[in-house]
Amino acid sequence: MPRKIILDCDPGHDDAVAMLLAHGNPEIELMAVTTVVGNQTLEKVTRNALSVARVAGIVGVPFAAGAARPLVRQIELAGSIHGESGLDGPVLPEPTIELDKRHAIDLIIDTIMQHEPGEITLVPTGGLTNIAMAVRKEPRIAERVREVVLMGGAYAGGNWSATSEFNIIIDPEAAHIVFNEKWPLTMVGLDLTHQALATPEVAAAIAAVGTGPARFVGELLEFFAEAYRDNQGFDSPPVHDPCAVAYVIDPSIMTTRTAPLDIELTGTLTLGMTVADFRAPAPADCTTQVAVSLDHGRFWALVVDALQRIGDPAQ
Amino acid sequence: MPRKIILDCDPGHDDAVAMLLAHGNPEIELMAVTTVVGNQTLEKVTRNALSVARVAGIVGVPFAAGAARPLVRQIELAGSIHGESGLDGPVLPEPTIELDKRHAIDLIIDTIMQHEPGEITLVPTGGLTNIAMAVRKEPRIAERVREVVLMGGAYAGGNWSATSEFNIIIDPEAAHIVFNEKWPLTMVGLDLTHQALATPEVAAAIAAVGTGPARFVGELLEFFAEAYRDNQGFDSPPVHDPCAVAYVIDPSIMTTRTAPLDIELTGTLTLGMTVADFRAPAPADCTTQVAVSLDHGRFWALVVDALQRIGDPAQ
Amino acid sequence: MPRKIILDCDPGHDDAVAMLLAHGNPEIELMAVTTVVGNQTLEKVTRNALSVARVAGIVGVPFAAGAARPLVRQIELAGSIHGESGLDGPVLPEPTIELDKRHAIDLIIDTIMQHEPGEITLVPTGGLTNIAMAVRKEPRIAERVREVVLMGGAYAGGNWSATSEFNIIIDPEAAHIVFNEKWPLTMVGLDLTHQALATPEVAAAIAAVGTGPARFVGELLEFFAEAYRDNQGFDSPPVHDPCAVAYVIDPSIMTTRTAPLDIELTGTLTLGMTVADFRAPAPADCTTQVAVSLDHGRFWALVVDALQRIGDPAQ
Amino acid sequence: MPRKIILDCDPGHDDAVAMLLAHGNPEIELMAVTTVVGNQTLEKVTRNALSVARVAGIVGVPFAAGAARPLVRQIELAGSIHGESGLDGPVLPEPTIELDKRHAIDLIIDTIMQHEPGEITLVPTGGLTNIAMAVRKEPRIAERVREVVLMGGAYAGGNWSATSEFNIIIDPEAAHIVFNEKWPLTMVGLDLTHQALATPEVAAAIAAVGTGPARFVGELLEFFAEAYRDNQGFDSPPVHDPCAVAYVIDPSIMTTRTAPLDIELTGTLTLGMTVADFRAPAPADCTTQVAVSLDHGRFWALVVDALQRIGDPAQ
Repeated sequence: MPRKIILDCDPGHDDAVAMLLAHGNPEIELMAVTTVVGNQTLEKVTRNALSVARVAGIVGVPFAAGAARPLVRQIELAGSIHGESGLDGPVLPEPTIELDKRHAIDLIIDTIMQHEPGEITLVPTGGLTNIAMAVRKEPRIAERVREVVLMGGAYAGGNWSATSEFNIIIDPEAAHIVFNEKWPLTMVGLDLTHQALATPEVAAAIAAVGTGPARFVGELLEFFAEAYRDNQGFDSPPVHDPCAVAYVIDPSIMTTRTAPLDIELTGTLTLGMTVADFRAPAPADCTTQVAVSLDHGRFWALVVDALQRIGDPAQ
Repeated sequence: MPRKIILDCDPGHDDAVAMLLAHGNPEIELMAVTTVVGNQTLEKVTRNALSVARVAGIVGVPFAAGAARPLVRQIELAGSIHGESGLDGPVLPEPTIELDKRHAIDLIIDTIMQHEPGEITLVPTGGLTNIAMAVRKEPRIAERVREVVLMGGAYAGGNWSATSEFNIIIDPEAAHIVFNEKWPLTMVGLDLTHQALATPEVAAAIAAVGTGPARFVGELLEFFAEAYRDNQGFDSPPVHDPCAVAYVIDPSIMTTRTAPLDIELTGTLTLGMTVADFRAPAPADCTTQVAVSLDHGRFWALVVDALQRIGDPAQ
Repeated sequence: MPRKIILDCDPGHDDAVAMLLAHGNPEIELMAVTTVVGNQTLEKVTRNALSVARVAGIVGVPFAAGAARPLVRQIELAGSIHGESGLDGPVLPEPTIELDKRHAIDLIIDTIMQHEPGEITLVPTGGLTNIAMAVRKEPRIAERVREVVLMGGAYAGGNWSATSEFNIIIDPEAAHIVFNEKWPLTMVGLDLTHQALATPEVAAAIAAVGTGPARFVGELLEFFAEAYRDNQGFDSPPVHDPCAVAYVIDPSIMTTRTAPLDIELTGTLTLGMTVADFRAPAPADCTTQVAVSLDHGRFWALVVDALQRIGDPAQ
Repeated sequence: MPRKIILDCDPGHDDAVAMLLAHGNPEIELMAVTTVVGNQTLEKVTRNALSVARVAGIVGVPFAAGAARPLVRQIELAGSIHGESGLDGPVLPEPTIELDKRHAIDLIIDTIMQHEPGEITLVPTGGLTNIAMAVRKEPRIAERVREVVLMGGAYAGGNWSATSEFNIIIDPEAAHIVFNEKWPLTMVGLDLTHQALATPEVAAAIAAVGTGPARFVGELLEFFAEAYRDNQGFDSPPVHDPCAVAYVIDPSIMTTRTAPLDIELTGTLTLGMTVADFRAPAPADCTTQVAVSLDHGRFWALVVDALQRIGDPAQ
């Protein structure tokens, strides 16, 4: 039985790949896609999500827009990495589906509450504003979701500050809310995603698929590679967000470590750090874990496989 | 034309008086009552609000329950001031009206968006969790409300810490959100409400009304007086929340001062302080003001008048 | 018997007046003058102190230079208030005395330890770096001084931020050290010193003394008046530092209030705030108090009297 | 020519080994030993230092006591690791040398200023209170020392909190001062010292030396092993402090990485974290580096060699 997920994202190049992986992989059933300010403005990332839906041929899945700004902090965007549109590189097709009328937090709540306990998995790949607001509006979802598998954070060195990762530092109060709820939570952070490099071999394998969506991903990765080369000195770009989806598909492609996690809210140098306490074995009731190492080959094989299954959707 | 208000409260003795004042005064039209965790748990304050509605004879006004906990911080209640029930003292009648099905933040949003711009005034008298979540879920309410007149904060000395007042310190992040939105905001803080003492003369005037609701208020104030005597050394208790309602009824019963206001989120000694900057005349675009001094006689006359108008509602 | 004091200062217009008051008043015996970075660089304020010594005819008192920068924070000067030299306005005479070879913190320690317990009073009128370092180097001075009477802080509104006063915010960690030692401490803050205005009547009374030092003070106050008018909107300038000396001379010229005091070190808006807890009567072992109200007439009479006693010192 | 060092320490088991290594190694000339509160009270660690001097046969080197408490924070000791005496395990001989009359910060300053620029290296192995106060009292030492090589901190996981190491968290303000001065600074933190394990093979090699000092070290390590096993789950104890001395003797026994370093002062979870910014190559003017990996064999060979050279000192 496929795993039912809600993808809460801010596309974003790697979010787009995450959408394609979730749509194309048979182990995943995409129940809803919700958007949140992050890599670009809410308006832009929402439009991007709808465009990617058309590229991927996603139909019958509700899409809803969520938070236009973080809970407490001012908006900070990642134009240096994702460009002016949030998805620079390929030509983006006009969306063909319409947004759900509901706010993202209501779509999240409704989806979770209308399914059985343990059925829905939340997969956030952007800032955690929507997830935080949803669980504060409807606290019962904390016990009803199966788990939260998120891309964000870093236990050993950040990208948006010395200690902190972009998705967390843009709304650290929301992250604090999400990390301190009692749902099982897997943090797929930079420690893991910096292993998910789109090397030239990966690019070649994707190109070899030969479909429209594969070309679309190729163009995304080309822009992404240049942005990461120029801004963070990477030879090949780390493709963060699909790692969270991949963990839901097959947890065995990464190793994880259980540890207490919390978010630093008052640090001058460390605001938004995802603090993992590795000093001792985690207590028995610890519900949080971090991803540590990735099977690079199997991860990219999942992405290529998803693109092959998607083929060339009717437009 | 009466002022349309939404009362967002956590009854609470003084919240109850605020409800009665809002209901009995002809200058106020109560559009909705929403509840939020604060003086007691959400469950208790919500039940209290419905009980007070029965005492006051409030019918046809939607009541909705909101946040059961603050955004980021752990729950902190004020049992030492409001007792085990949140409204200790009088016997509380069984509620006769039912809760609106909506979450408080949706009732707030719907009410504001269904009225013309500038029609609805928000009057929060508890922690600001509901208001913060409402404006984050629907940012357009920030421009659509007429103003926010809240009981909370203190610019010169707190009650729950040396610098901070209960309604703010229990959810400082929510307060930060509300104080930094671009709506006109009047902070009716301890600086003002510590002048709103229910002296023996006030108690006598209320008793003289001779109705059921007046007796109810008398019993509330009796308990409140003892709690404030034992916990904070007051001779007569400060009755905070109706001051915010009174300001909406007649701003001339208090003096105010325009000043930039903000909420301290990282202070060790000052967490939740409402910092007012009085160093220079406020900038021309400053939309925040603090209440400074109260006309004690006219304030209590408003309360007594409201009780007289309410009379003995049919039960 | 006169009170033996060490004046730790950063002249500074009002520091200069404090020196003259301490030197001219017969109830004070000036045992040492130490300097600290603050209103201007250590080099400048030290030279200023020596120049003022010549103006005042202070001889036989050791002067020593202390900290050139705060403990943790970067240097922040008050050129906007005290000018480029730190003592703009009058012509400053060449110093005729030489600095003690010792560091200020050693002169402070030696002076205290060489006198009987309870003999020496510390009167800091600048940042508290020297005092903090002295008590950390020689902890026994905390029990040996009679008391600390300092100009600095504010319990109800700052001048260098919304909540904080210059002397404290420039080295809040040092202030934290000094305020948390177990010596009796009187904070003469802005709450008091904003009452010590050099009105035109005060200026006239000083001018009427007719001596060189009085003219020097007149020129200082003229510059100071303009600086406070332009920077903080005062009609007449508050002359802070001599208030601390005046309290040592005659505590009855001000009212005080005993309260726990502490320094905020982590606040975003409130860094360096001197937090007074007025919520309840101070505990019996509380050793800190704040100055509240000033007898303006008697205060300035002390200053005029000191100038008259100083007369025209031989140069 | 041997390297002239000042060892500022809080013995402490590993401090004692550091003293022995510094004394026994011919590449090091020990110019002064200063003590600071840390592993135990100042009184205890000072007596321990003198006892170790007798064990090691150190004569003609000035020893001075320094700070009895941290700058701002309350005292926190490490009795769980070092026992009641700070050096539990062996019988401690009565000291035979006397303390220098000077305060540690004056001995540090005098030693540095009386030597040529670039001659003296500071080797702190405890909290940084003395070093911070010395450089604030005499700022010229910052340019005059050759370098600072300290044991303390951790860039990837602490021991006294999730993120922070004992020597730094006990006086983070002092650490902030020391890490932000412009001297070359090498941080030998837990990242390195957790590789300096005293394995059974190491213990055997030390025992084989067969002298009194070697037996003394053996007894120290026996107690230390048990403490680390019980408190932090180590199989063999990490012997931190001699690593800093070893780096001065021969930098080639460890790898290092240049990176900006700073100390977190306001974090709730991260207070006292030594934040290293590894996101990009360090700027050309970066003067701070961290130790990364240790040649375990060569490190312990240095310790064994020092013990052999010390032999059995005349008592």
